[in-house]
Amino acid sequence: MGKMLYEGKAKQIFETEKDDEVIVYYKDDATAFNGGKKGTIEDKGVLNNRITEALFTYLSENGIKTHYIKTLSDREQLVKKVSIIPLEVIVRNLAAGSMAKRLGIKEGTPLKTTIFEICLKDDSLGDPMINDTHAVGIGAATFEELREIYAMTDKINDLLKAYFDKIGIILVDFKLEFGKDKDGNILLADEISPDTCRFWDKVTLEKLDKDRFRRDLGNVKGAYEEIMGRMKKI
Amino acid sequence: MGKMLYEGKAKQIFETEKDDEVIVYYKDDATAFNGGKKGTIEDKGVLNNRITEALFTYLSENGIKTHYIKTLSDREQLVKKVSIIPLEVIVRNLAAGSMAKRLGIKEGTPLKTTIFEICLKDDSLGDPMINDTHAVGIGAATFEELREIYAMTDKINDLLKAYFDKIGIILVDFKLEFGKDKDGNILLADEISPDTCRFWDKVTLEKLDKDRFRRDLGNVKGAYEEIMGRMKKI
Ligand SMILES: Nc1ncnc2c1ncn2[C@@H]1O[C@H](COP(=O)(O)OP(=O)(O)OP(=O)(O)O)[C@@H](O)[C@H]1O
Ligand SMILES: Nc1ncnc2c1ncn2[C@@H]1O[C@H](COP(=O)(O)OP(=O)(O)OP(=O)(O)O)[C@@H](O)[C@H]1O
Ligand SMILES: [Mg+2]
Ligand SMILES: [Mg+2]
Repeated sequence: MGKMLYEGKAKQIFETEKDDEVIVYYKDDATAFNGGKKGTIEDKGVLNNRITEALFTYLSENGIKTHYIKTLSDREQLVKKVSIIPLEVIVRNLAAGSMAKRLGIKEGTPLKTTIFEICLKDDSLGDPMINDTHAVGIGAATFEELREIYAMTDKINDLLKAYFDKIGIILVDFKLEFGKDKDGNILLADEISPDTCRFWDKVTLEKLDKDRFRRDLGNVKGAYEEIMGRMKKI
Repeated sequence: MGKMLYEGKAKQIFETEKDDEVIVYYKDDATAFNGGKKGTIEDKGVLNNRITEALFTYLSENGIKTHYIKTLSDREQLVKKVSIIPLEVIVRNLAAGSMAKRLGIKEGTPLKTTIFEICLKDDSLGDPMINDTHAVGIGAATFEELREIYAMTDKINDLLKAYFDKIGIILVDFKLEFGKDKDGNILLADEISPDTCRFWDKVTLEKLDKDRFRRDLGNVKGAYEEIMGRMKKI
Protein backbone atom coordinates (compact mmCIF):
# COMPACT_ATOMS: atom_id res chain seq x y z
CA MET A 1 0.00 0.00 0.00
CA GLY A 2 1.22 3.53 -0.76
CA LYS A 3 1.77 6.49 1.51
CA MET A 4 -1.05 7.57 3.84
CA LEU A 5 -2.44 10.81 2.41
CA TYR A 6 -4.94 11.61 5.16
CA GLU A 7 -6.04 10.21 8.46
CA GLY A 8 -9.58 11.13 9.48
CA LYS A 9 -11.56 10.14 12.53
CA ALA A 10 -13.05 7.01 10.93
CA LYS A 11 -10.93 6.28 7.87
CA GLN A 12 -7.49 6.56 6.39
CA ILE A 13 -6.75 7.40 2.76
CA PHE A 14 -3.73 5.83 1.00
CA GLU A 15 -2.23 6.59 -2.36
CA THR A 16 -1.96 3.89 -5.04
CA GLU A 17 0.18 3.56 -8.16
CA LYS A 18 -2.46 5.49 -10.10
CA ASP A 19 -2.66 9.12 -9.18
CA ASP A 20 -6.43 9.22 -9.75
CA GLU A 21 -7.22 6.32 -7.40
CA VAL A 22 -6.89 6.00 -3.63
CA ILE A 23 -7.54 3.29 -1.06
CA VAL A 24 -9.93 3.95 1.80
CA TYR A 25 -9.16 2.00 4.98
CA TYR A 26 -12.06 1.78 7.48
CA LYS A 27 -11.05 2.00 11.15
CA ASP A 28 -12.99 0.94 14.25
CA ASP A 29 -12.60 4.42 15.79
CA ALA A 30 -15.80 6.26 16.55
CA THR A 31 -16.19 9.92 17.46
CA ALA A 32 -19.20 12.13 18.08
CA PHE A 33 -19.98 15.77 18.82
CA ASN A 34 -17.15 17.04 16.65
CA GLY A 35 -14.56 14.79 18.26
CA GLY A 36 -15.76 15.65 21.80
CA LYS A 37 -16.60 11.97 22.45
CA LYS A 38 -14.21 9.20 21.41
CA GLY A 39 -14.34 5.41 21.43
CA THR A 40 -14.05 2.28 19.33
CA ILE A 41 -16.73 -0.04 18.03
CA GLU A 42 -15.37 -3.54 17.43
CA ASP A 43 -15.43 -4.48 13.74
CA LYS A 44 -17.12 -1.22 12.77
CA GLY A 45 -14.51 -0.76 10.03
CA VAL A 46 -15.38 -4.13 8.50
CA LEU A 47 -19.12 -3.51 8.72
CA ASN A 48 -18.99 0.05 7.32
CA ASN A 49 -16.72 -1.07 4.48
CA ARG A 50 -19.20 -3.78 3.49
CA ILE A 51 -22.30 -1.61 3.99
CA THR A 52 -20.82 1.22 1.94
CA GLU A 53 -19.80 -1.26 -0.78
CA ALA A 54 -23.37 -2.57 -1.04
CA LEU A 55 -25.00 0.86 -1.02
CA PHE A 56 -22.60 2.48 -3.48
CA THR A 57 -23.03 -0.51 -5.80
CA TYR A 58 -26.83 -0.20 -5.58
CA LEU A 59 -26.67 3.56 -6.23
CA SER A 60 -24.30 3.09 -9.23
CA GLU A 61 -26.64 0.51 -10.71
CA ASN A 62 -29.35 3.14 -10.45
CA GLY A 63 -27.56 5.91 -12.29
CA ILE A 64 -25.64 7.68 -9.52
CA LYS A 65 -22.02 8.48 -10.32
CA THR A 66 -19.87 7.41 -7.34
CA HIS A 67 -16.19 7.19 -6.45
CA TYR A 68 -16.45 3.46 -5.68
CA ILE A 69 -14.34 1.08 -7.80
CA LYS A 70 -13.97 -2.16 -5.86
CA THR A 71 -13.48 -3.73 -2.48
CA LEU A 72 -9.92 -4.89 -1.76
CA SER A 73 -10.27 -6.49 1.66
CA ASP A 74 -12.43 -6.52 4.75
CA ARG A 75 -11.49 -2.95 5.57
CA GLU A 76 -10.29 -1.50 2.29
CA GLN A 77 -11.89 -0.24 -0.85
CA LEU A 78 -10.39 1.24 -3.98
CA VAL A 79 -12.05 4.51 -5.02
CA LYS A 80 -11.52 7.27 -7.53
CA LYS A 81 -9.56 10.08 -5.97
CA VAL A 82 -11.62 13.24 -5.90
CA SER A 83 -11.15 16.72 -4.64
CA ILE A 84 -13.81 16.85 -1.94
CA ILE A 85 -16.30 19.74 -2.20
CA PRO A 86 -16.03 21.10 1.36
CA LEU A 87 -19.67 20.54 2.24
CA GLU A 88 -21.54 17.94 4.25
CA VAL A 89 -24.90 17.49 2.58
CA ILE A 90 -27.54 16.34 5.05
CA VAL A 91 -30.98 15.00 4.16
CA ARG A 92 -33.69 14.82 6.81
CA ASN A 93 -36.85 12.80 6.21
CA LEU A 94 -37.90 13.14 9.86
CA ALA A 95 -36.74 15.58 12.53
CA ALA A 96 -33.95 14.17 14.72
CA GLY A 97 -30.63 14.97 16.33
CA SER A 98 -29.16 18.45 16.26
CA MET A 99 -31.89 19.84 14.02
CA ALA A 100 -34.74 18.71 16.26
CA LYS A 101 -32.93 20.34 19.17
CA ARG A 102 -32.12 23.63 17.43
CA LEU A 103 -35.70 24.02 16.19
CA GLY A 104 -37.34 22.80 19.38
CA ILE A 105 -39.23 19.91 17.78
CA LYS A 106 -39.61 16.37 18.99
CA GLU A 107 -37.50 13.63 17.39
CA GLY A 108 -39.52 11.74 14.83
CA THR A 109 -41.78 14.67 13.92
CA PRO A 110 -42.81 14.44 10.26
CA LEU A 111 -41.86 17.42 8.11
CA LYS A 112 -43.91 19.26 5.49
CA THR A 113 -41.03 18.85 3.05
CA THR A 114 -37.74 16.94 2.95
CA ILE A 115 -35.05 19.06 4.58
CA PHE A 116 -31.68 19.49 2.87
CA GLU A 117 -28.91 21.08 4.90
CA ILE A 118 -25.36 21.90 4.02
CA CYS A 119 -22.53 22.34 6.51
CA LEU A 120 -19.13 23.77 5.72
CA LYS A 121 -16.53 21.01 6.23
CA ASP A 122 -14.16 22.85 8.55
CA ASP A 123 -13.34 21.16 11.85
CA SER A 124 -11.79 24.31 13.31
CA LEU A 125 -15.13 26.12 12.84
CA GLY A 126 -17.16 23.10 14.03
CA ASP A 127 -18.63 22.35 10.57
CA PRO A 128 -21.13 25.26 10.73
CA MET A 129 -24.44 24.95 8.93
CA ILE A 130 -24.64 27.34 5.99
CA ASN A 131 -26.96 27.97 3.07
CA ASP A 132 -26.36 28.08 -0.68
CA THR A 133 -25.54 31.79 -0.77
CA HIS A 134 -22.91 31.32 1.96
CA ALA A 135 -21.38 28.41 0.04
CA VAL A 136 -21.18 30.46 -3.13
CA GLY A 137 -20.35 33.71 -1.31
CA ILE A 138 -17.22 32.23 0.28
CA GLY A 139 -16.24 30.17 -2.77
CA ALA A 140 -16.93 26.68 -1.37
CA ALA A 141 -19.08 25.81 -4.42
CA THR A 142 -20.85 27.43 -7.36
CA PHE A 143 -24.63 27.65 -7.79
CA GLU A 144 -24.24 25.24 -10.73
CA GLU A 145 -22.42 22.67 -8.59
CA LEU A 146 -25.03 23.03 -5.84
CA ARG A 147 -27.83 22.42 -8.33
CA GLU A 148 -26.17 19.20 -9.44
CA ILE A 149 -25.41 18.12 -5.88
CA TYR A 150 -29.01 18.67 -4.76
CA ALA A 151 -30.38 16.81 -7.79
CA MET A 152 -28.09 13.85 -7.06
CA THR A 153 -28.92 13.99 -3.35
CA ASP A 154 -32.64 14.00 -3.99
CA LYS A 155 -32.35 10.95 -6.23
CA ILE A 156 -30.09 9.20 -3.71
CA ASN A 157 -32.65 9.86 -0.98
CA ASP A 158 -35.43 8.30 -3.04
CA LEU A 159 -33.28 5.27 -3.83
CA LEU A 160 -32.10 4.75 -0.25
CA LYS A 161 -35.55 5.26 1.30
CA ALA A 162 -36.95 2.57 -1.00
CA TYR A 163 -34.02 0.24 -0.29
CA PHE A 164 -34.25 0.49 3.49
CA ASP A 165 -38.02 0.37 3.50
CA LYS A 166 -37.78 -3.10 1.98
CA ILE A 167 -35.79 -4.30 4.98
CA GLY A 168 -38.01 -2.68 7.58
CA ILE A 169 -35.91 0.38 8.26
CA ILE A 170 -36.86 4.05 8.27
CA LEU A 171 -34.13 6.24 6.80
CA VAL A 172 -34.49 9.19 9.20
CA ASP A 173 -31.55 11.28 7.96
CA PHE A 174 -28.10 10.92 6.46
CA LYS A 175 -24.98 12.81 5.40
CA LEU A 176 -23.30 12.74 2.00
CA GLU A 177 -20.05 14.11 0.62
CA PHE A 178 -19.31 14.85 -3.01
CA GLY A 179 -16.08 15.43 -4.87
CA LYS A 180 -14.82 16.26 -8.32
CA ASP A 181 -12.73 13.81 -10.31
CA LYS A 182 -9.88 14.91 -12.57
CA ASP A 183 -12.34 15.54 -15.43
CA GLY A 184 -14.54 17.78 -13.27
CA ASN A 185 -17.36 15.24 -12.84
CA ILE A 186 -19.18 15.42 -9.55
CA LEU A 187 -19.13 12.01 -7.85
CA LEU A 188 -20.70 10.75 -4.65
CA ALA A 189 -17.73 10.09 -2.34
CA ASP A 190 -16.92 9.12 1.25
CA GLU A 191 -19.20 6.50 2.88
CA ILE A 192 -22.84 5.66 3.64
CA SER A 193 -23.12 3.62 6.81
CA PRO A 194 -24.64 3.59 10.30
CA ASP A 195 -21.95 6.18 11.12
CA THR A 196 -23.50 8.64 8.66
CA CYS A 197 -27.21 7.74 8.68
CA ARG A 198 -29.98 7.47 11.25
CA PHE A 199 -31.77 4.13 10.84
CA TRP A 200 -34.85 3.31 12.90
CA ASP A 201 -36.62 -0.04 12.92
CA LYS A 202 -39.95 0.52 11.18
CA VAL A 203 -41.93 -1.37 13.81
CA THR A 204 -40.15 -0.80 17.13
CA LEU A 205 -38.46 2.54 16.21
CA GLU A 206 -35.31 1.09 17.76
CA LYS A 207 -32.20 3.04 16.78
CA LEU A 208 -29.79 1.02 14.62
CA ASP A 209 -27.00 3.54 14.06
CA LYS A 210 -24.30 5.68 15.65
CA ASP A 211 -26.84 7.30 17.99
CA ARG A 212 -26.40 4.15 20.13
CA PHE A 213 -22.77 5.26 20.59
CA ARG A 214 -23.52 9.01 20.90
CA ARG A 215 -26.19 8.42 23.53
CA ASP A 216 -24.67 5.40 25.29
CA LEU A 217 -27.59 3.14 24.40
CA GLY A 218 -25.50 -0.03 24.40
CA ASN A 219 -25.22 -2.82 21.82
CA VAL A 220 -23.63 -0.52 19.25
CA LYS A 221 -21.91 -3.31 17.35
CA GLY A 222 -25.15 -5.32 17.34
CA ALA A 223 -26.98 -2.46 15.63
CA TYR A 224 -24.39 -2.23 12.85
CA GLU A 225 -24.55 -6.03 12.43
CA GLU A 226 -28.33 -5.89 12.30
CA ILE A 227 -28.18 -3.41 9.41
CA MET A 228 -25.61 -5.53 7.55
CA GLY A 229 -27.66 -8.66 8.23
CA ARG A 230 -30.87 -7.22 6.83
CA MET A 231 -29.03 -5.79 3.82
CA LYS A 232 -27.74 -9.26 2.95
CA LYS A 233 -31.35 -10.34 2.42
CA ILE A 234 -31.81 -7.96 -0.54
CA MET B 1 -54.28 55.32 21.94
CA GLY B 2 -55.68 51.79 22.16
CA LYS B 3 -54.53 48.84 24.17
CA MET B 4 -50.91 47.72 23.91
CA LEU B 5 -50.89 44.50 21.89
CA TYR B 6 -47.19 43.67 22.19
CA GLU B 7 -44.10 45.03 23.81
CA GLY B 8 -40.85 44.13 22.12
CA LYS B 9 -37.32 45.07 22.97
CA ALA B 10 -37.29 48.26 20.85
CA LYS B 11 -40.93 49.01 20.08
CA GLN B 12 -44.47 48.73 21.35
CA ILE B 13 -47.49 47.90 19.22
CA PHE B 14 -50.89 49.47 20.03
CA GLU B 15 -54.29 48.76 18.60
CA THR B 16 -56.32 51.48 16.86
CA GLU B 17 -60.02 51.84 16.07
CA LYS B 18 -59.43 49.94 12.83
CA ASP B 19 -58.67 46.30 13.31
CA ASP B 20 -56.33 46.23 10.32
CA GLU B 21 -54.12 49.11 11.51
CA VAL B 22 -51.77 49.37 14.49
CA ILE B 23 -49.52 52.06 15.94
CA VAL B 24 -45.82 51.37 16.36
CA TYR B 25 -44.18 53.30 19.21
CA TYR B 26 -40.37 53.50 19.05
CA LYS B 27 -38.59 53.27 22.42
CA ASP B 28 -35.03 54.28 23.33
CA ASP B 29 -34.29 50.80 24.69
CA ALA B 30 -31.44 48.97 23.05
CA THR B 31 -30.56 45.31 23.39
CA ALA B 32 -27.94 43.10 21.76
CA PHE B 33 -26.88 39.45 21.72
CA ASN B 34 -30.45 38.20 22.08
CA GLY B 35 -31.20 40.43 25.05
CA GLY B 36 -27.91 39.55 26.80
CA LYS B 37 -26.83 43.21 26.72
CA LYS B 38 -29.27 45.98 27.61
CA GLY B 39 -29.17 49.78 27.60
CA THR B 40 -30.79 52.93 26.29
CA ILE B 41 -29.72 55.25 23.53
CA GLU B 42 -31.10 58.77 24.06
CA ASP B 43 -33.59 59.73 21.35
CA LYS B 44 -33.05 56.48 19.45
CA GLY B 45 -36.83 56.04 19.26
CA VAL B 46 -37.24 59.42 17.56
CA LEU B 47 -34.37 58.82 15.16
CA ASN B 48 -35.42 55.27 14.20
CA ASN B 49 -39.03 56.38 13.70
CA ARG B 50 -37.89 59.12 11.30
CA ILE B 51 -35.29 56.97 9.53
CA THR B 52 -37.80 54.14 9.03
CA GLU B 53 -40.38 56.65 7.77
CA ALA B 54 -37.97 58.00 5.16
CA LEU B 55 -36.78 54.58 4.01
CA PHE B 56 -40.22 52.95 3.84
CA THR B 57 -41.51 55.99 1.89
CA TYR B 58 -38.60 55.70 -0.55
CA LEU B 59 -39.16 51.95 -0.96
CA SER B 60 -42.94 52.43 -1.51
CA GLU B 61 -42.24 55.03 -4.17
CA ASN B 62 -40.11 52.41 -5.87
CA GLY B 63 -42.69 49.67 -5.98
CA ILE B 64 -42.18 47.85 -2.68
CA LYS B 65 -45.37 47.06 -0.78
CA THR B 66 -44.88 48.05 2.87
CA HIS B 67 -46.96 48.26 6.05
CA TYR B 68 -46.21 51.98 6.48
CA ILE B 69 -49.20 54.37 6.39
CA LYS B 70 -48.14 57.58 8.08
CA THR B 71 -46.16 59.12 10.90
CA LEU B 72 -48.23 60.26 13.87
CA SER B 73 -45.62 61.83 16.14
CA ASP B 74 -41.93 61.85 16.89
CA ARG B 75 -42.06 58.27 18.11
CA GLU B 76 -45.18 56.85 16.52
CA GLN B 77 -46.21 55.60 13.14
CA LEU B 78 -49.45 54.15 11.88
CA VAL B 79 -48.97 50.92 9.95
CA LYS B 80 -51.09 48.17 8.47
CA LYS B 81 -51.46 45.33 10.91
CA VAL B 82 -49.93 42.17 9.52
CA SER B 83 -49.43 38.68 10.73
CA ILE B 84 -45.65 38.53 10.86
CA ILE B 85 -44.01 35.68 8.93
CA PRO B 86 -41.77 34.28 11.69
CA LEU B 87 -38.51 34.83 9.83
CA GLU B 88 -35.78 37.42 10.04
CA VAL B 89 -34.45 37.91 6.52
CA ILE B 90 -30.84 39.05 6.51
CA VAL B 91 -28.94 40.41 3.53
CA ARG B 92 -25.16 40.57 3.59
CA ASN B 93 -23.27 42.61 1.02
CA LEU B 94 -20.00 42.26 2.94
CA ALA B 95 -19.03 39.76 5.65
CA ALA B 96 -19.54 41.16 9.17
CA GLY B 97 -20.85 40.31 12.62
CA SER B 98 -21.97 36.82 13.54
CA MET B 99 -21.54 35.47 10.02
CA ALA B 100 -17.93 36.60 9.69
CA LYS B 101 -17.23 34.93 13.04
CA ARG B 102 -19.03 31.64 12.30
CA LEU B 103 -17.31 31.28 8.93
CA GLY B 104 -13.91 32.47 10.12
CA ILE B 105 -13.64 35.37 7.69
CA LYS B 106 -12.49 38.93 8.35
CA GLU B 107 -15.14 41.66 8.67
CA GLY B 108 -15.41 43.60 5.45
CA THR B 109 -14.39 40.68 3.22
CA PRO B 110 -16.15 40.95 -0.16
CA LEU B 111 -18.33 37.99 -1.10
CA LYS B 112 -18.64 36.19 -4.45
CA THR B 113 -22.44 36.63 -4.25
CA THR B 114 -24.87 38.51 -2.03
CA ILE B 115 -25.72 36.36 0.98
CA PHE B 116 -29.35 35.94 2.05
CA GLU B 117 -29.97 34.32 5.42
CA ILE B 118 -33.17 33.49 7.21
CA CYS B 119 -33.53 33.01 10.95
CA LEU B 120 -36.53 31.57 12.70
CA LYS B 121 -38.07 34.32 14.88
CA ASP B 122 -38.21 32.46 18.19
CA ASP B 123 -36.51 34.10 21.14
CA SER B 124 -36.66 30.93 23.24
CA LEU B 125 -34.58 29.14 20.59
CA GLY B 126 -32.27 32.14 20.08
CA ASP B 127 -33.57 32.93 16.57
CA PRO B 128 -31.65 30.04 14.95
CA MET B 129 -30.48 30.37 11.37
CA ILE B 130 -32.36 28.01 9.07
CA ASN B 131 -32.68 27.43 5.34
CA ASP B 132 -35.69 27.37 3.03
CA THR B 133 -36.36 23.66 3.48
CA HIS B 134 -36.41 24.08 7.28
CA ALA B 135 -38.83 27.01 6.98
CA VAL B 136 -41.17 24.99 4.79
CA GLY B 137 -40.54 21.72 6.63
CA ILE B 138 -41.70 23.17 9.95
CA GLY B 139 -44.50 25.26 8.44
CA ALA B 140 -43.03 28.73 9.02
CA ALA B 141 -43.55 29.64 5.34
CA THR B 142 -44.29 28.07 1.97
CA PHE B 143 -41.84 27.87 -0.96
CA GLU B 144 -44.12 30.31 -2.80
CA GLU B 145 -43.97 32.85 0.05
CA LEU B 146 -40.20 32.46 0.26
CA ARG B 147 -39.85 33.12 -3.47
CA GLU B 148 -41.81 36.35 -3.12
CA ILE B 149 -39.91 37.38 0.02
CA TYR B 150 -36.53 36.82 -1.65
CA ALA B 151 -37.61 38.72 -4.77
CA MET B 152 -38.74 41.67 -2.64
CA THR B 153 -35.60 41.48 -0.51
CA ASP B 154 -33.34 41.50 -3.54
CA LYS B 155 -35.07 44.57 -4.93
CA ILE B 156 -34.97 46.30 -1.52
CA ASN B 157 -31.24 45.60 -1.32
CA ASP B 158 -30.62 47.21 -4.70
CA LEU B 159 -32.73 50.24 -3.77
CA LEU B 160 -31.12 50.70 -0.35
CA LYS B 161 -27.56 50.19 -1.60
CA ALA B 162 -28.10 52.91 -4.20
CA TYR B 163 -29.74 55.23 -1.63
CA PHE B 164 -26.97 54.93 0.94
CA ASP B 165 -24.22 55.07 -1.64
CA LYS B 166 -25.42 58.58 -2.55
CA ILE B 167 -24.79 59.73 1.01
CA GLY B 168 -21.40 58.10 1.37
CA ILE B 169 -22.49 55.02 3.26
CA ILE B 170 -21.80 51.34 2.59
CA LEU B 171 -24.81 49.16 3.38
CA VAL B 172 -22.90 46.18 4.83
CA ASP B 173 -25.90 44.10 5.93
CA PHE B 174 -29.45 44.44 7.22
CA LYS B 175 -32.45 42.55 8.57
CA LEU B 176 -36.01 42.66 7.25
CA GLU B 177 -39.33 41.29 8.47
CA PHE B 178 -42.36 40.58 6.32
CA GLY B 179 -45.99 40.01 7.19
CA LYS B 180 -49.28 39.20 5.53
CA ASP B 181 -52.16 41.66 5.56
CA LYS B 182 -55.79 40.55 5.84
CA ASP B 183 -55.97 39.97 2.06
CA GLY B 184 -52.88 37.75 2.13
CA ASN B 185 -50.54 40.28 0.51
CA ILE B 186 -46.94 40.08 1.66
CA LEU B 187 -45.80 43.48 2.96
CA LEU B 188 -42.45 44.70 4.22
CA ALA B 189 -43.04 45.32 7.94
CA ASP B 190 -41.13 46.25 11.11
CA GLU B 191 -38.35 48.86 10.75
CA ILE B 192 -35.19 49.70 8.83
CA SER B 193 -32.80 51.73 10.96
CA PRO B 194 -29.29 51.71 12.46
CA ASP B 195 -30.71 49.10 14.87
CA THR B 196 -31.28 46.68 11.99
CA CYS B 197 -28.55 47.61 9.48
CA ARG B 198 -24.77 47.85 9.44
CA PHE B 199 -23.74 51.20 7.95
CA TRP B 200 -20.08 52.01 7.34
CA ASP B 201 -18.78 55.37 6.17
CA LYS B 202 -17.54 54.86 2.61
CA VAL B 203 -14.30 56.72 3.18
CA THR B 204 -13.31 56.11 6.80
CA LEU B 205 -15.19 52.77 7.27
CA GLU B 206 -16.41 54.20 10.60
CA LYS B 207 -19.35 52.23 11.98
CA LEU B 208 -22.58 54.27 12.09
CA ASP B 209 -25.00 51.74 13.58
CA LYS B 210 -25.87 49.57 16.55
CA ASP B 211 -22.43 47.95 16.49
CA ARG B 212 -21.28 51.08 18.39
CA PHE B 213 -23.59 49.94 21.20
CA ARG B 214 -22.84 46.19 20.86
CA ARG B 215 -19.09 46.77 20.96
CA ASP B 216 -18.98 49.77 23.31
CA LEU B 217 -17.45 52.05 20.68
CA GLY B 218 -18.97 55.22 22.15
CA ASN B 219 -20.93 58.03 20.49
CA VAL B 220 -23.86 55.74 19.69
CA LYS B 221 -26.41 58.53 19.51
CA GLY B 222 -24.05 60.58 17.31
CA ALA B 223 -23.91 57.74 14.79
CA TYR B 224 -27.70 57.50 14.52
CA GLU B 225 -27.84 61.32 14.15
CA GLU B 226 -25.18 61.20 11.46
CA ILE B 227 -27.30 58.74 9.45
CA MET B 228 -30.44 60.85 9.87
CA GLY B 229 -28.48 64.02 9.00
CA ARG B 230 -27.10 62.59 5.77
CA MET B 231 -30.52 61.18 4.83
CA LYS B 232 -32.03 64.66 5.10
CA LYS B 233 -29.76 65.75 2.25
CA ILE B 234 -31.48 63.39 -0.22
N1 LIG C 1 -12.80 9.59 -3.13
C1 LIG C 1 -12.18 10.36 -2.24
N2 LIG C 1 -11.06 11.04 -2.58
C2 LIG C 1 -10.43 11.82 -1.67
N3 LIG C 1 -10.85 12.02 -0.41
C3 LIG C 1 -11.96 11.39 -0.02
C4 LIG C 1 -12.68 10.52 -0.91
N4 LIG C 1 -13.77 10.04 -0.25
C5 LIG C 1 -13.72 10.58 1.00
N5 LIG C 1 -12.64 11.38 1.15
C6 LIG C 1 -12.22 12.13 2.35
O1 LIG C 1 -11.43 11.23 3.12
C7 LIG C 1 -11.61 11.48 4.51
C8 LIG C 1 -12.16 10.25 5.17
O2 LIG C 1 -11.80 10.24 6.52
P1 LIG C 1 -12.84 10.36 7.70
O3 LIG C 1 -14.23 10.12 7.24
O4 LIG C 1 -12.29 9.55 8.82
O5 LIG C 1 -12.68 11.92 8.00
P2 LIG C 1 -13.38 12.71 9.18
O6 LIG C 1 -12.76 12.40 10.46
O7 LIG C 1 -14.87 12.51 9.02
O8 LIG C 1 -12.96 14.18 8.88
P3 LIG C 1 -13.30 15.13 7.72
O9 LIG C 1 -14.39 14.46 6.90
O10 LIG C 1 -13.77 16.33 8.44
O11 LIG C 1 -12.03 15.32 6.97
C9 LIG C 1 -12.62 12.62 4.61
O12 LIG C 1 -11.91 13.84 4.73
C10 LIG C 1 -13.34 12.56 3.27
O13 LIG C 1 -13.86 13.81 2.89
N1 LIG D 1 -47.20 45.83 10.78
C1 LIG D 1 -47.03 45.04 11.84
N2 LIG D 1 -48.09 44.36 12.35
C2 LIG D 1 -47.93 43.55 13.43
N3 LIG D 1 -46.74 43.36 14.06
C3 LIG D 1 -45.67 44.00 13.58
C4 LIG D 1 -45.75 44.87 12.46
N4 LIG D 1 -44.52 45.36 12.21
C5 LIG D 1 -43.69 44.81 13.13
N5 LIG D 1 -44.36 43.99 13.96
C6 LIG D 1 -43.85 43.22 15.11
O1 LIG D 1 -43.87 44.10 16.22
C7 LIG D 1 -42.80 43.83 17.10
C8 LIG D 1 -41.95 45.08 17.23
O2 LIG D 1 -41.30 45.07 18.44
P1 LIG D 1 -39.71 44.93 18.57
O3 LIG D 1 -39.01 45.17 17.30
O4 LIG D 1 -39.33 45.74 19.77
O5 LIG D 1 -39.64 43.37 18.88
P2 LIG D 1 -38.32 42.56 19.25
O6 LIG D 1 -37.87 42.85 20.63
O7 LIG D 1 -37.35 42.78 18.14
O8 LIG D 1 -38.84 41.10 19.33
P3 LIG D 1 -39.38 40.17 18.22
O9 LIG D 1 -39.13 40.86 16.91
O10 LIG D 1 -38.55 38.95 18.41
O11 LIG D 1 -40.82 39.99 18.55
C9 LIG D 1 -42.01 42.69 16.48
O12 LIG D 1 -42.44 41.47 17.03
C10 LIG D 1 -42.41 42.79 15.01
O13 LIG D 1 -42.29 41.54 14.35
MG1 LIG E 1 -15.93 11.56 7.64
MG1 LIG F 1 -37.52 43.72 16.40
